[in-house]
Amino acid sequence: MPELFTVVSTDEAFERLRAHLAWTVRPAEVPLGLALGRTLARDVIAGEPLPPFARSAMDGYAVRARDTLGASESSPVYLRLAGEAEMGSIPAFSVAPGTCARIHTGAALPAGADAVVMVEETNLVGAAEVEVSASVAPGEDVIQLGEDVVAGERALEAGRRLRPVDIGALAALGVVDVPVAQMPRVAVLSTGDELVAPGERTRPGEIRDVNGPMLCAMLERAGAAARHHGIVPDDEERLVEAARAALDASDALVVTAGSSVSARDVTARALACLGSPGILLHGIAVKPGKPTIVACCDGKPVFGLPGNPVSAAVVAWRLLLPTVRLLLGETVPHGGLAPAPRTARLTQNVPSRSGREDFVAVRLVQADDGEVLAEPAFAKSNLVFSLSRTDGLVRVPRDSGGLRAGERAEVFTW
Amino acid sequence: MPELFTVVSTDEAFERLRAHLAWTVRPAEVPLGLALGRTLARDVIAGEPLPPFARSAMDGYAVRARDTLGASESSPVYLRLAGEAEMGSIPAFSVAPGTCARIHTGAALPAGADAVVMVEETNLVGAAEVEVSASVAPGEDVIQLGEDVVAGERALEAGRRLRPVDIGALAALGVVDVPVAQMPRVAVLSTGDELVAPGERTRPGEIRDVNGPMLCAMLERAGAAARHHGIVPDDEERLVEAARAALDASDALVVTAGSSVSARDVTARALACLGSPGILLHGIAVKPGKPTIVACCDGKPVFGLPGNPVSAAVVAWRLLLPTVRLLLGETVPHGGLAPAPRTARLTQNVPSRSGREDFVAVRLVQADDGEVLAEPAFAKSNLVFSLSRTDGLVRVPRDSGGLRAGERAEVFTW
Repeated sequence: MPELFTVVSTDEAFERLRAHLAWTVRPAEVPLGLALGRTLARDVIAGEPLPPFARSAMDGYAVRARDTLGASESSPVYLRLAGEAEMGSIPAFSVAPGTCARIHTGAALPAGADAVVMVEETNLVGAAEVEVSASVAPGEDVIQLGEDVVAGERALEAGRRLRPVDIGALAALGVVDVPVAQMPRVAVLSTGDELVAPGERTRPGEIRDVNGPMLCAMLERAGAAARHHGIVPDDEERLVEAARAALDASDALVVTAGSSVSARDVTARALACLGSPGILLHGIAVKPGKPTIVACCDGKPVFGLPGNPVSAAVVAWRLLLPTVRLLLGETVPHGGLAPAPRTARLTQNVPSRSGREDFVAVRLVQADDGEVLAEPAFAKSNLVFSLSRTDGLVRVPRDSGGLRAGERAEVFTW
Repeated sequence: MPELFTVVSTDEAFERLRAHLAWTVRPAEVPLGLALGRTLARDVIAGEPLPPFARSAMDGYAVRARDTLGASESSPVYLRLAGEAEMGSIPAFSVAPGTCARIHTGAALPAGADAVVMVEETNLVGAAEVEVSASVAPGEDVIQLGEDVVAGERALEAGRRLRPVDIGALAALGVVDVPVAQMPRVAVLSTGDELVAPGERTRPGEIRDVNGPMLCAMLERAGAAARHHGIVPDDEERLVEAARAALDASDALVVTAGSSVSARDVTARALACLGSPGILLHGIAVKPGKPTIVACCDGKPVFGLPGNPVSAAVVAWRLLLPTVRLLLGETVPHGGLAPAPRTARLTQNVPSRSGREDFVAVRLVQADDGEVLAEPAFAKSNLVFSLSRTDGLVRVPRDSGGLRAGERAEVFTW
């Protein structure tokens, strides 16, 4: 075999790959309506301040704050009504000393005014006089020009995955052509003499390809353009041919190997000849998922994942998806592991062996006191429903010596 | 005004709406490759067992367990090699007493065999004899027929939002045309004399529509087919006309009102005449977001959201998105609030008033000890970047009297 079966830690596996990648983010422009979930390819600099003018935060009267000094219910001040600040334009008049202007939430403050008295603190006396029964400070109930964003400020940074609130922020800035990273094209190849496509009829002894569709879905959710390149038998020559064609058409390649040692060997030999430097490591200290191959072929990441669906899902989640984030230009922490999105209290001990990172599928259940508990679902790694029946993975950190019942564990939901 | 401004709790607001909805999930079929994130419209019943035959979980030899009784390193047993179980077919031979068959992980067990001895516990002696140095129990290292799924079993239930692992599970079952719920069509209308579309040039006093694009993105992420029906000025007649057209073309309608009292009144009057029974409530006990209108018009949900982006996002998240899940046929708990996806420790007190549910935007930061802290970002509700700069919302439950620094709070990430 061309490579040594040297088991390295998951963190080191990811960093070795990162060090070998030759990649620059390819920018694209998409309309705002299609930007949700995409990653910004460059910083978005505010071209103007937000709000672009001082606005009222209340319904009431725009005033010069100094005019309200000492006003109270027992001793109100009286201001002459100079006009009304219409929505959607800058008032043509100004608020001179001793005057005020009717104003609605969101309207531009007239020149001269520096505060708003809310309507509840006022009384309109006749047609043109306003009784003000509270004193306001300068700036009170006013949203200042540039209070949200200053012109020239970096409003949104490159590498950010756009959420609905960011779509709102881009709309506020008038950014309707959004500079995003092109989706990395990731090819998925399934291998195995026993596999047939999910839509095909199985003959006795055959099973349907689970990993191809599952990995494509994981990649898609992570922001990649995943494409399944079909099923290849456990034949080195045909695998090399299919893998080379898939990699040529893509930015990364994932091969899910068969589960037997001989099928894995075929995969290893095939991946070894796809480019330079080739296989970086074969075997990672993770359970399940140990017989993973990580390669870099002429700057492109290539993975050989175990054939068991549970192992494939764990390794894809642990190494493949952070690699997609790298290709999108996102910030990926050392070792690839982002902070766990949640924690939950374990209902059982989860043993582990030193020197290895373990993942156990869990169901989350809410206890009567509202606390979320994680019930380990120890299952054979060949059974895909042992994943589908769970909510996520609990991580047992390397050298932790396992986790105890009652302990709070990191949970990565599917 | 046609409706009373009666403030009800968020839970009650949701339940009043649920009680009035006239809705049945509309099923559709999508190919497996497009099913990620969709909701199952009906139960998926397994048409066959999984795996469909007993398979080996190891590389080794298929045996009759009884033949290995008492085998050990010091006292091995010897079995005659009857053949090799090829991948992808059912072996044509059977394992008679005193014989065994070479087998790879995933291959079908030959008839007669009921266990697998892993290769590490064996030695091939000559061409046709296998030395077995460990005793195995019946079923050892075998995945039994139907161990993952039994034929006729409900494998995946209606109302489930499909995750990548579920895509794998459907592939395993051969379900390539997936019965999903049609995406509910939700119309979004923005109102306000001061608003212009994000791609248009603003004149002094005008601002760009933030809520339209942001709410569409939130709805899209929740599984709806959102469509922005444009910006309508604060004019009752024109709003009624636009709202009626939008609702006729949709399954639900969201109007983001202006922020001023008069703009809200226009919205309330317009929504009141869209169908029966009309407005269910006007005002919910939530901060921000109090001046929300919930209506049901001829069985369709209709919302009037506050104009401030922060208020609109909170109410959309609290009431609108659970409504989308209802329309998708998902299980929605009483009051609409799903369990918080995570908790974090607050860095500051978050005060609250009794009788009201409060939401405060927070930034999540990881402390040196790995714990995730929630830093409240108290901000004016008119500033969209006060959302974009945060990671989610902390919820202060009703009648909790606020949350204290150091307390663990529920966090709903954007």
